[in-house]
Formats: sequence, C-alpha cells, structure tokens
Amino acid sequence: MTLSPNLILEFKTLLGENNVLTEETDRLAYAYDAAVLKPVTPALVVMPTSEETLGRTIKLAYDNGLPITVRGSGTNLSGAVIPEPGDGLVILTNRLNKILEINQEDLYAVVEPGVLTANFANAVAATGLFYPPDPGSQAVSTLGGNVALNAGGLRGLKYGVTKDYLMGVEFFDYNGELVKTGSRTVKCVTGYNIGGLMISSEGTLGVFSKLIFKLVPPPKASQAMMAVYDTVQGASETVAAIIAAHILPCTLEFLDQKCIRVVEANSKIGLPTEAAAILLIEVDGSHQAGVDEDAAKVKSLCTKCGANDIRVAQNADEKNKIWEARRNALPSLARARPTTVLEDATVPRSKIPQMVSELNRIAEKYKLEMGTFGHAGDGNLHPTILCDKRDEEEYRRVEEAVDEIFDVALKLQGTLSGEHGIGIAKAKWMEKETNKATIEFSKNLRRALDPKYLFNAGKKIV
Amino acid sequence: MTLSPNLILEFKTLLGENNVLTEETDRLAYAYDAAVLKPVTPALVVMPTSEETLGRTIKLAYDNGLPITVRGSGTNLSGAVIPEPGDGLVILTNRLNKILEINQEDLYAVVEPGVLTANFANAVAATGLFYPPDPGSQAVSTLGGNVALNAGGLRGLKYGVTKDYLMGVEFFDYNGELVKTGSRTVKCVTGYNIGGLMISSEGTLGVFSKLIFKLVPPPKASQAMMAVYDTVQGASETVAAIIAAHILPCTLEFLDQKCIRVVEANSKIGLPTEAAAILLIEVDGSHQAGVDEDAAKVKSLCTKCGANDIRVAQNADEKNKIWEARRNALPSLARARPTTVLEDATVPRSKIPQMVSELNRIAEKYKLEMGTFGHAGDGNLHPTILCDKRDEEEYRRVEEAVDEIFDVALKLQGTLSGEHGIGIAKAKWMEKETNKATIEFSKNLRRALDPKYLFNAGKKIV
Repeated sequence: MTLSPNLILEFKTLLGENNVLTEETDRLAYAYDAAVLKPVTPALVVMPTSEETLGRTIKLAYDNGLPITVRGSGTNLSGAVIPEPGDGLVILTNRLNKILEINQEDLYAVVEPGVLTANFANAVAATGLFYPPDPGSQAVSTLGGNVALNAGGLRGLKYGVTKDYLMGVEFFDYNGELVKTGSRTVKCVTGYNIGGLMISSEGTLGVFSKLIFKLVPPPKASQAMMAVYDTVQGASETVAAIIAAHILPCTLEFLDQKCIRVVEANSKIGLPTEAAAILLIEVDGSHQAGVDEDAAKVKSLCTKCGANDIRVAQNADEKNKIWEARRNALPSLARARPTTVLEDATVPRSKIPQMVSELNRIAEKYKLEMGTFGHAGDGNLHPTILCDKRDEEEYRRVEEAVDEIFDVALKLQGTLSGEHGIGIAKAKWMEKETNKATIEFSKNLRRALDPKYLFNAGKKIV
Repeated sequence: MTLSPNLILEFKTLLGENNVLTEETDRLAYAYDAAVLKPVTPALVVMPTSEETLGRTIKLAYDNGLPITVRGSGTNLSGAVIPEPGDGLVILTNRLNKILEINQEDLYAVVEPGVLTANFANAVAATGLFYPPDPGSQAVSTLGGNVALNAGGLRGLKYGVTKDYLMGVEFFDYNGELVKTGSRTVKCVTGYNIGGLMISSEGTLGVFSKLIFKLVPPPKASQAMMAVYDTVQGASETVAAIIAAHILPCTLEFLDQKCIRVVEANSKIGLPTEAAAILLIEVDGSHQAGVDEDAAKVKSLCTKCGANDIRVAQNADEKNKIWEARRNALPSLARARPTTVLEDATVPRSKIPQMVSELNRIAEKYKLEMGTFGHAGDGNLHPTILCDKRDEEEYRRVEEAVDEIFDVALKLQGTLSGEHGIGIAKAKWMEKETNKATIEFSKNLRRALDPKYLFNAGKKIV
C-alpha cells in the first residue's frame, strides 16, 4: 500500500473512520469476484453512506489519480471488479442501500445502487407489482451491479433483462459531478440515451448514485413442468417447437446429463439420472385459462418432440422442487472439483442443438469434465468446466477449450457473453466478435468520459 | 452552394450521376422536416445504394469537412434533420431499403435503415410475427429514423418503444469505418451497449447501415372500445383505475373536446361533440377468454369513473372507426389554422389530470387555440397549438406557452420530450430537465465520436 497517510486521513474525515478500511485483513475480502482470476488486494476500501459523500469520494480519488473500482457484492463472473494493482481504491455501495420510492400508480421505483436484487424484488412484490430480472445471484447481488453488468437471468426470453427495466440513472462523472439521465416516464427522449450507455459499462464510465426501474403487473397464474429426454436433440426441438407455436414461457431451462447427475447426487430430489437432458418449463400469464391452454400445448409439444416423461407440478411444493433442480445446478457442479469455469457464450436459440453437440465435441477433444445447463429459451447456455486450476497442464486445456467455445458461438452468429460481461476475463476476445473499428470507437468513448482511465481501471472491456 | 465542382464529381463517380442531386429545385425538398422551423437548403443531396458506398460517402464528406445530415423520410417533429447552412450534405437512406432477413425461429429481423416502418411491420406480420412500435408517421417514416429518434407510438404502455426492439446496429463512424454492436441473440453483453447509445442520438454519432430488431408473437385476440366523459377528470381517473387493476391495454388514448370537435367536423364519424373527453381503449392478449375478461373489467372501470357512454367495437369495421378518430386527430387539427405546433411534453401517468388542467390554463392565459390528444396510458400527451406563424405577435405567445408547458411538465416530474426528440426545437431547454454536468458529459461524448462536429451539425441536442 503506497497511499499517503494524508490522503487516507482525507477519506476518513470525509466518510468517518468506520467507513474506511485500511487493514490488509479487511481489504483482502475485496480482492476478487466470482471469476476464476488472480485476486488483487486494493490499497483502500471506502464505504460512502450518502449520495453527497459518494460524489466527494469520487472527486477526491480521481483528482489524486487513484484507480477506482466500484463494487456491489462482487458476484460478477468476469473479473469486472478485480481492483487495479497499486493504489487501487474500492468503493463499496453496500451502505447506499435505500429503496427511495416504489410508485404503484406510475409503475416505477427509485433506488440506491447498493440495494440487493432480491430485497428489491420482494419489496416490489409486497406492493403487488413485479420486477422480473432474476440473475442467479439475486439473493446477494446489488441493483447497481445488475445495471453495470446488464444482469440477465431465467426470465430473459419473455421478460427481458436488466436493461429492459432501467428508465433512468443518476451517476457521478470523473469530475465528481452528478449526471442525470432518463425519467420517471415510460417514454423519454431528452438528449442522449446515457442510461442505455451505462448499462453493461461495467463501472468504466461513472459511478451510479440513483437508479429508476420500470415495474410491471405480475402474472396472475403460472404452471411449471419438467420434460425428460433420451436425446439432447429432442429437448432442442421442443424449444424450437414452443417458439414456433408462439408461446413465450417465462422460463425455459435446459440441463444435460452431467448436470442432472451431479444435482441428483447432491440433493436427491428424484431426477432422472439416465436422461440425456431435461427441460424445466414455466408458462405464466394474467389469466388462468390462458395459462392452462399454453401449458397443455407445451406438454403436447414435449411429447411430440420425444419427451419420455413429463412431470407437471400439481402444487407450490412440486413447483419448487422443479426449480430446485435448476438452482442446484451450479452449486452441485461447483462441488465436484476445486475449480469451476462457468461460461455463457450465447447463440440464437435455433442453434442450440449444434451448440450442444459442439460443446460435447470440445469437452471430449480437450479431455475435460463439462456440464451444460442454462436458458435454452434465449440460447444462453452455461457450459461449465470442472477442473483444478493448480493443475497447470489441465488448466491450459481448459483455456484452449474456452477459446474454441467462443469460436463456435461466433460461427453460429452468437455472442461471447450473454449475461456475464466482458471484464478482464473476455477482453482479449472482444475483437473476434466485433472488429478493430468497434474497439477504437469504444476506446474513444471511454477516454472522453474517463480521461485518466481510472474508472474500473485494468485491462477491462477495451 | 459553395462545394467545389471536383468534390461533386467525386460524389458522382462514387454514387452514379442519378444518385447525386445538385439542382436547387431538387435540393429544396430536403430543407425541412415536420417541425415548425426555418428550412435550410442543403448544398448537395446524395443517395447511396449500398453499404459500401454509404461508408465511402461518409469518409469523403467527413474528410472534406462537410456537415452531414442523414435523412430517412424527414417525419421528425424536432428539426432533427434540418441541414446546416453552408456546405451541408444530406445523405438520403431511401435506397438502402432492403429487408435482409426475417428469422421466424429466432424472432429477429435484419434490415437496412431506409426500410419504411409500415412496410417492415407488414412484412413481419406476413410471417406471422409482430413488430409493435407504431409511430404516427409509420406509413412514411423509416426504421433508421425510428432508431435515431427512438420513435414511440400508440403501443408504448404495453409494448414499449423502438429502443425496446433494437438488438443490434452496424454503423459508420466519422472515419467511415464500420462499427458492429449487439447481436442476433436476446442476451448480449459484449462490450459497451453502443446500440443503446445510438438510440435517440438523432444522427449525431454515426450513420446506420444495418439494424437488427427483436420480433414477438402477435396477440391472438383484441377488443376495442370508446368511453365518453363529461369531465376530463373522469377520463384521467379511468386511466389510473385501469393501471391499478393491473391491466395494461395495448393502446389507451385520450382526446379532449377540441380534438373531438375538429375530428368530427372533418370526418363525420359520429363522435360525441358535447363530451369533455373520450378515451379510446384496446386490450389484447394471446387468449380470447383473457381478453374478454380484461375488456369487461375495463368497461366496468370506465362506468365507475363516470363514463356516460361506452361503445364497444363489435367487428373489425367498428374497431377501425374507433381508431379512425385517433388517426384523424392531428390531420384535423392541422387543417384548422395555417400552423400546427405539436408538443409532446410527458408526465408520469398519474399526473395527467394536473397536466390537462395546466394545459387548459396555459391556453387561456396566452389566448391560444389548443387541442390535446395523446397516449394517456404512458402520460405522453400531445398538446397541439393552432396558430399562424406569420402573425408575429401570436407566435410570440405560442413560444411563451410552450416554454410554460415544459416548466409544468418538469415540475410534475415529467420530461421535455416523450417521443419527438430534441433536435433544434428543444435543445435550448435541455439543461432545464438535466443539469450543466449532463450537458458537459453529453458534449464530451459527442466530441469524442465526432471531433469535427459534422454529424447532424447545427445547434442540435447539445
């Protein structure tokens, strides 16, 4: 740590002694995120407790040339909040955690960035409304982080992702000045869509102080089921058939055999361990009759495409059991080996059969243990490689496999990342999907809005 | 016109003689748009016919320092495509009008920017899918223009606006280099959300060459009705009551007495000319039973809130008649006086009663003829002032009234513009809604992506 004692004192005077972490044991906790990457301990960790001190913190840090990493709960999977070595400052948003307004008449909410996603969703639900984005980490992730990474989740196909709910943002720019963009109205075209730019900017363009989200009426009825397949092809064909029938399930999830087996081994919920794949499907809507009709159609399409068993949830308990299988996929896989490399290369949904067969080919080619689950409805699969990073030879194979996964996804007109972000993890592949001009354009933009490259510094995005 | 003959020759060589307009009589047609503002005749008008020549046109123009105005059909209402005086070049996109792909399996389409909105919507409908954004000018507006202005329309409340459907953009930057952003997948977080930034950038950051739009399954049933009120308050309360019942109609339109009367005078469709206001409401959904249920609920809410008559469309003909009233509102108002000033200050929907009463107060204060119609469901009203611009004293009152309308909208937590854009018309008010820092941030951004300030030059946005 090379920060001057005077500067540390300035932060303490501004924020209060309790909101500045200087001890290495405290700072260590903010050295990493959920990506499998080398941790970097920040020089200082600060916790502003108000919009005003947040702005002054940024000005103080920027004027002094400190690399600034804003951190919600650090749940991102791309290294997006790993601090820059040296004088790196981490700004925690967890004390900016107030839900300022939930407006039931005008269907919006105003929050601070440190509010936990699930807390927000629950508070919204308590007013009878619905905030759909449900990233896997929602129990601990923050809304600021969700916006910074454009968090996805299980409901993307029907309800969209975080960007589809952001109506407005206020944030501090590199001068510590508050920029205001967007509105409390559904329609707003006053000036540049800066909120749209801040979405998935991964903390590189400014620091959020306030977020305005759109809310929607909740579905009034839903029906969940599990369909069991002997072949991956059958499951994939079902996805295509459901879309072709113009039904958009609120969730349409895929688990391959590997996932089924590790989940069952861990949680004994009665999954079909001999199946090649299962689909977990939920349809919802504002009318029971319509949902029943959709569910019946989906069921018949599953059968037509080769499902050998369909288990329809008869009550809340059974429904919960179906989703438990999905929720347990990643934790169960993660338990199998010391290191879990979770990818999210995404393809247009009709390319899922090809993608799954390519993933299996790649796992075999590089002799790796891989389980694949994910959001089949929007082509967003999560091939998950189980390995041990300490085994250098094995990890080299992992890296080569990941490289090949990206090549395949792009060949199939897909994208490097559906919902995890670029961060450090995928920055080097950016040009593969876009081109030199896009990288240059992005760099120009970043340089203009952060001339010293201090916001979430490091080899992130571009 | 001061362009060098050599440069004109270069454009002709690049694009072909037929695609370069040099005659003043030809150029005059591109001097204005739908805003009530002073026309400016461009020095040259060019019509690229391919992505490649579009890119080379931009490079040639930018290298030679020509102000570049990209024009679709010029239907915007904010002066966003009025050329810069002097060497202004207008690039027409009307020959870049191919629908390149409509993908029914993956629910997206790829188009060139000059495709007309209605042509696209019809082509999509022919495949059994649905592209919801329906700006009033859809019969003649282009999709490129829709993206540049983030066009809204009648379906905003339930289906969102253009930005909710843009999945990807390719565009030329100031170097004439092709930038690629977004994807054919619902989820994509590869790098900055540059597509989000291009939305409503009004041609100031680059020139679109390709657009990828999300498509959705169409509703399978719908029901339209007209509700008639003695008081504006009753109509406003109905809007609030419908939202409170968690019903999102696909359209929920408001017409005040002035509008009702001019429409009826012009089209004799049997509107209730004694009514203070009418609501035109359409509910839709994927199941007839659900739609019937919603329609019944809406009807009972209308009655409860004081509607003295409710006319439910019994067939396609009657439904069409209901929407004819709405479609004729602007043309009928426009016929009444030589100049029509159409505003779109927008407020959170619960503020509509206050907004309408303020609008009436302002009309009276400035002794102006004003009719108000618009999208009550999303708070996006169109107060329309009927005047004669040649009467300087009257027009001064119009300008003062508009100024006051903006003040009121902002006081009610609304926005300067819901869907018409900033352009030249509202640039001077930008700071009222945002602040100095937001303007500076926007200028920084613009300067970085257009160092010579040639893209849609002039006092536009910031």
